Amino acid sequence: MKCKNVLLSLSVLAGLSLVGCAQDVNSANVANNGAVTKDERPNIIVILTDDHGYADVGFNNSPDLKTPNLDQLAYGGTIFTSAYVAHPFCGPSRAALMTGRYPHEYGAQFNLPRKGSNQGLPKEETFISKVLQNAGYYTGAIGKWHLGEHADHHPNVRGFDEFYGFLAGGHYYFPEKYEPEYERLVKRGKHNVNMYYWPLEYNGQEVREPEYLTDGLSREASTFVEKASKKDKPFFLYLAYNAPHTPLEAKEEDMALFPNITDKNRKIYAGMVYAVDRGVGKLVDTLKRTGEYDNTLIVFLSDNGGKTIKGANNYPLRRGKGSAYEGGIRVPMMFHWPKEIKGGNTFHHPVSALDFYPMFAALGNAKIPEGKDLDGYNVWPKIQAGKPTHDTKMIYAMRHQKGFSETSGRLGDYKVVRTSKEGPWQLFNVQTDPGEHNDLAAQKPWLLREMVSQIEIWSWDHQQPKWFHIWDAGGEWHEQNMPRFHETFKVGQADPVLQAQP
Amino acid sequence: MKCKNVLLSLSVLAGLSLVGCAQDVNSANVANNGAVTKDERPNIIVILTDDHGYADVGFNNSPDLKTPNLDQLAYGGTIFTSAYVAHPFCGPSRAALMTGRYPHEYGAQFNLPRKGSNQGLPKEETFISKVLQNAGYYTGAIGKWHLGEHADHHPNVRGFDEFYGFLAGGHYYFPEKYEPEYERLVKRGKHNVNMYYWPLEYNGQEVREPEYLTDGLSREASTFVEKASKKDKPFFLYLAYNAPHTPLEAKEEDMALFPNITDKNRKIYAGMVYAVDRGVGKLVDTLKRTGEYDNTLIVFLSDNGGKTIKGANNYPLRRGKGSAYEGGIRVPMMFHWPKEIKGGNTFHHPVSALDFYPMFAALGNAKIPEGKDLDGYNVWPKIQAGKPTHDTKMIYAMRHQKGFSETSGRLGDYKVVRTSKEGPWQLFNVQTDPGEHNDLAAQKPWLLREMVSQIEIWSWDHQQPKWFHIWDAGGEWHEQNMPRFHETFKVGQADPVLQAQP
Amino acid sequence: MKCKNVLLSLSVLAGLSLVGCAQDVNSANVANNGAVTKDERPNIIVILTDDHGYADVGFNNSPDLKTPNLDQLAYGGTIFTSAYVAHPFCGPSRAALMTGRYPHEYGAQFNLPRKGSNQGLPKEETFISKVLQNAGYYTGAIGKWHLGEHADHHPNVRGFDEFYGFLAGGHYYFPEKYEPEYERLVKRGKHNVNMYYWPLEYNGQEVREPEYLTDGLSREASTFVEKASKKDKPFFLYLAYNAPHTPLEAKEEDMALFPNITDKNRKIYAGMVYAVDRGVGKLVDTLKRTGEYDNTLIVFLSDNGGKTIKGANNYPLRRGKGSAYEGGIRVPMMFHWPKEIKGGNTFHHPVSALDFYPMFAALGNAKIPEGKDLDGYNVWPKIQAGKPTHDTKMIYAMRHQKGFSETSGRLGDYKVVRTSKEGPWQLFNVQTDPGEHNDLAAQKPWLLREMVSQIEIWSWDHQQPKWFHIWDAGGEWHEQNMPRFHETFKVGQADPVLQAQP
Repeated sequence: MKCKNVLLSLSVLAGLSLVGCAQDVNSANVANNGAVTKDERPNIIVILTDDHGYADVGFNNSPDLKTPNLDQLAYGGTIFTSAYVAHPFCGPSRAALMTGRYPHEYGAQFNLPRKGSNQGLPKEETFISKVLQNAGYYTGAIGKWHLGEHADHHPNVRGFDEFYGFLAGGHYYFPEKYEPEYERLVKRGKHNVNMYYWPLEYNGQEVREPEYLTDGLSREASTFVEKASKKDKPFFLYLAYNAPHTPLEAKEEDMALFPNITDKNRKIYAGMVYAVDRGVGKLVDTLKRTGEYDNTLIVFLSDNGGKTIKGANNYPLRRGKGSAYEGGIRVPMMFHWPKEIKGGNTFHHPVSALDFYPMFAALGNAKIPEGKDLDGYNVWPKIQAGKPTHDTKMIYAMRHQKGFSETSGRLGDYKVVRTSKEGPWQLFNVQTDPGEHNDLAAQKPWLLREMVSQIEIWSWDHQQPKWFHIWDAGGEWHEQNMPRFHETFKVGQADPVLQAQP
Repeated sequence: MKCKNVLLSLSVLAGLSLVGCAQDVNSANVANNGAVTKDERPNIIVILTDDHGYADVGFNNSPDLKTPNLDQLAYGGTIFTSAYVAHPFCGPSRAALMTGRYPHEYGAQFNLPRKGSNQGLPKEETFISKVLQNAGYYTGAIGKWHLGEHADHHPNVRGFDEFYGFLAGGHYYFPEKYEPEYERLVKRGKHNVNMYYWPLEYNGQEVREPEYLTDGLSREASTFVEKASKKDKPFFLYLAYNAPHTPLEAKEEDMALFPNITDKNRKIYAGMVYAVDRGVGKLVDTLKRTGEYDNTLIVFLSDNGGKTIKGANNYPLRRGKGSAYEGGIRVPMMFHWPKEIKGGNTFHHPVSALDFYPMFAALGNAKIPEGKDLDGYNVWPKIQAGKPTHDTKMIYAMRHQKGFSETSGRLGDYKVVRTSKEGPWQLFNVQTDPGEHNDLAAQKPWLLREMVSQIEIWSWDHQQPKWFHIWDAGGEWHEQNMPRFHETFKVGQADPVLQAQP
Repeated sequence: MKCKNVLLSLSVLAGLSLVGCAQDVNSANVANNGAVTKDERPNIIVILTDDHGYADVGFNNSPDLKTPNLDQLAYGGTIFTSAYVAHPFCGPSRAALMTGRYPHEYGAQFNLPRKGSNQGLPKEETFISKVLQNAGYYTGAIGKWHLGEHADHHPNVRGFDEFYGFLAGGHYYFPEKYEPEYERLVKRGKHNVNMYYWPLEYNGQEVREPEYLTDGLSREASTFVEKASKKDKPFFLYLAYNAPHTPLEAKEEDMALFPNITDKNRKIYAGMVYAVDRGVGKLVDTLKRTGEYDNTLIVFLSDNGGKTIKGANNYPLRRGKGSAYEGGIRVPMMFHWPKEIKGGNTFHHPVSALDFYPMFAALGNAKIPEGKDLDGYNVWPKIQAGKPTHDTKMIYAMRHQKGFSETSGRLGDYKVVRTSKEGPWQLFNVQTDPGEHNDLAAQKPWLLREMVSQIEIWSWDHQQPKWFHIWDAGGEWHEQNMPRFHETFKVGQADPVLQAQP
């Protein structure tokens, strides 16, 4: 963990006591070496939804959607109001979750090229799944992969005993529609059939999925738990629904539950989320039936903000998917674990998806590979104690686009953000002002400057992108001499000492 | 081998039966594990000429050149009318032959910098010579190397027990001329004497070559075979003539055999090719004398198309060296192997120099290193059976120049090609129209689009060039924001699904 | 060692006998395997000053400064009038010293980003400290590091048993001033406190330095020698004073010794250098007291030229820090070693800081890692014999700035240099004309061309910079399509053979 540059806590700024980074790390070690013993290690399930808006779960007070099963878990667990992902779109966000590091640090800032490249995350980046597998966990990935299509990057070689799903960044939902279309295109001689149409696979073998995709993935999740429950070891399940990501396709019966929604996209989206929730209900049933319910930590979150033009609602957050404003990176999240979490809690301090890697490793008593850098830290003791998090270790976001790097950083309650080349850096108290309406930059210029400077430090470790989702993005990157950080981090006058000639 | 993206064969497009990539691979495995047993492993000789035009061998009906020894081998073996190299100029073409991969995939798209850099092909790319050496072959390289001048890249450390020749990309031919010039320059204090003048070497030791260079290399080839025949193992000989590459220098007696040729360059060129042919004759004599003739596979080909302004003739192909049109990449080629090839065959389906690696490994029962990517496949079973090749696995070519990437791809009988920034993608049936006269793009736009898209997929794995032959080329590359693939692969309207935002 | 391109010595040009590169290497081997046996291995101390001008030591005839202790060592040892560092500013110069290679060859052409990046020299580059440590030396680094702030790059993991000092590129000098300022900034909540204010450290543990920094470092040097003298092994001490680098801060008592200096900067600078000299005196006392004096090789030099606007004097050299003219790269240097050096010698032939690595390894009978490239060679036998050095192996310098690469190369007595985009290449005899006044380019165009061509060869092995000291420099690099070597190495008409198409 990289702590050395953070010399004091933001709580000092607010007049509170000093909580240094070293302390955060120590707490993690305690959890790692202390309470949790091998026999009691919990199962861990990550349920990841795709482009799912902040407001689009019942437990975040959705006015129109229904997610009764998720809500029941949330109310019986801990709801996080300030949960962040490491990137405002899919691939890099998932990369961060698996590696515990910002994707910018190993060139994975963009989605993988579609249509079958050999690219994938560097093998030096050991996945959390591998860490848990090495520690004796039975591991499964179900659903969307999007972390490399080549055999070298397959879930089965990156720490998952089991994989059921698809390698691409998305998929059509109705087999009765995508199967014949796939056959038609293949017969027509199309060589690069859109991967959204491809057959699903189980551990590398093509399979026929008979159900509506979300239902199919839920079924497989239950199957995995059944299988896992018979083993003499805990399990780790990564259940990555592609819903409610486009294409917008829901079952009629699910949409029928929302007669009051008139917007067409919203109605489909509502049905898609409902299907996810139904699957979660079934998964919970299976956990109870197999006796695994009590000692299973369920982590539910979305991979990034919702796409509002595709039916999502990120209220009260500003903007959505793709943005460094809260709507792009703050996501609905809850933890559920009967044995350890009493329920009825809401945790307002920031938590990052980057914190899962060290946290899961600690809970699973698993060894993090020697020399592995991590950008998050084990927040579990702080969550348990209801204490402030990330008041010394910032949470960053950065998305490159059109010759500019949209960037933000949150420390404690404050966040600096810059979303356009022309616009200035802004400062918000996103704890009290999650909609990012009241720019405090003029009031606290020194804080703004400090925080931007902290982000710049982070940027020093970025690598050039190893790939771009489309060649146009790569062309643009080079033509614009990206990342143009010398412009990105300009805040008024430069620090004369730092800018001095060597 | 990367096959996963190729879902069906082009033969489907032409109404024939489906032959999938998996099948190609299986055939290779059969050959590898099946018929060939250790005791019967063949010797393998690759005779590579340099800038030798498609029409400039007797067996391709040269109207004016004479290659009686090559012709005799060709008529007693198999002539390939659609043999391709992986690049239209020297260094990258040779890199592909040795590594079994397109040079673009490991940054070797340009010739090595001249004048003694430390650069060379990445060590991760195990050469076919190493694979055969590891499998017990006695291995030799004779002639031009051009794959790295530093000790780390020397033939002796890349799988060759023996090396006689020169490390540079070319050489003068007459010792009585280049030796005194070399001495003169050294005496004058010149530090960077053109490597074309340098003394030859044998396994790292400087030697005095007494003969006309081509004759010298032929002599050494025979010497190698003599030596090899006394060993209890098969041999692999890579005989890389620099003839008829410039400087144009032939023996008077050889030129005298072409009294009807009046063009000065052509006359010298004819003499140079004749000298190669004489050497091949001597090599065949040696093979017969040592009893190795019957079980030696001789593969003859040129490293790229001929340079017409330097005497070459690529008829009936369009353009020559450096071009993605057929004249740059389709080369004269024949196989000869008395024990396994009956003779009198002509093989019209496409074969790539990239196919040698897996084919030689299969024939030599040699183990390809774990995880080694290969771009070709073992075409031997198909050649033996006279069956279509590369109807599912495309053969690519790409040459970067002046801010543009000249590019082509062949699949079955068809080829798409684009040779200028302004010009469009063209489609030819190069089986019936090797001169690329009749552009079928307007007639088969879907086929063109599919094939270009397939090339684009390939391009995703390209790396930035690790070197340039001259700094100007490097400057140009960066100034033009190369490779500019977003422009290269534009074909009318983009596919809306593929171009969608992440 | 890369020698193969250098075919003959410059002495040939001057009509002297031929001394080839192979000979240089052999001499090194002789020293390595021959005379020096294990029991007699010398201690080695490198005293490195920072931005210390060529004329700013008594032994180089400073008219106003006083360095009595350095002078005494110099007069009792060997003074070098043509000592070069590998780069005209700090970080890359130090990188070269530690790795024995030009920083350009592994992307370290710029100073490390300030403010705490994770960057540092590649681990593949084994430091000379590690080589000596592995050979049984007790090793210590004291003072400025500037080679990586992350734990992975800490002196203690790069071959130093002991480290006392600071990781940044500079530091304030008076604890009574920097300590309270540090406390104030931390209290104010500043996250990125300028590292010039940070507490010092001892082997990773923060410490309070009570003295004026230069005195503190001198004290620790003596402590190290005391400790080392009790061990049953030789020692290697790297004593890297940050003086007289800015900030300009000297003790009143030291400045008081220079009543005739009226320029304010020069007066402080004089005091700073005097403090260094006082420390050297104490170190010598300790060496004598501990009985180590006789068999200790002391190497004293500056890391680059002095900054004249900050008080330095590089007379008679042209320009100063940052320049490829002599003032940037030729530094004050002397060796002292009672047991082996008689004293009273001045060595006029060029020596490079890159020569230390192989020389120290030879003197310490230490094994250079297999495959390690080195740009210098062991000049010790030549120094002992008073023979010409670097008459076959050039000494290069290159500094990238504002879209141009300021570049020079010295071979024997001659030097080519180009310091601006508009200006031409110049040629000087820097032995007779150290001020670089008389451009000989028009008189010896062939020599100029040869030498520039030699530099171009070197440039082929350069890598893109891995970092920039500030983002502006990185932005500039990319916007200017650096390194633009195709322009840098243009000398009149290009060599038609070398420029020919592939």
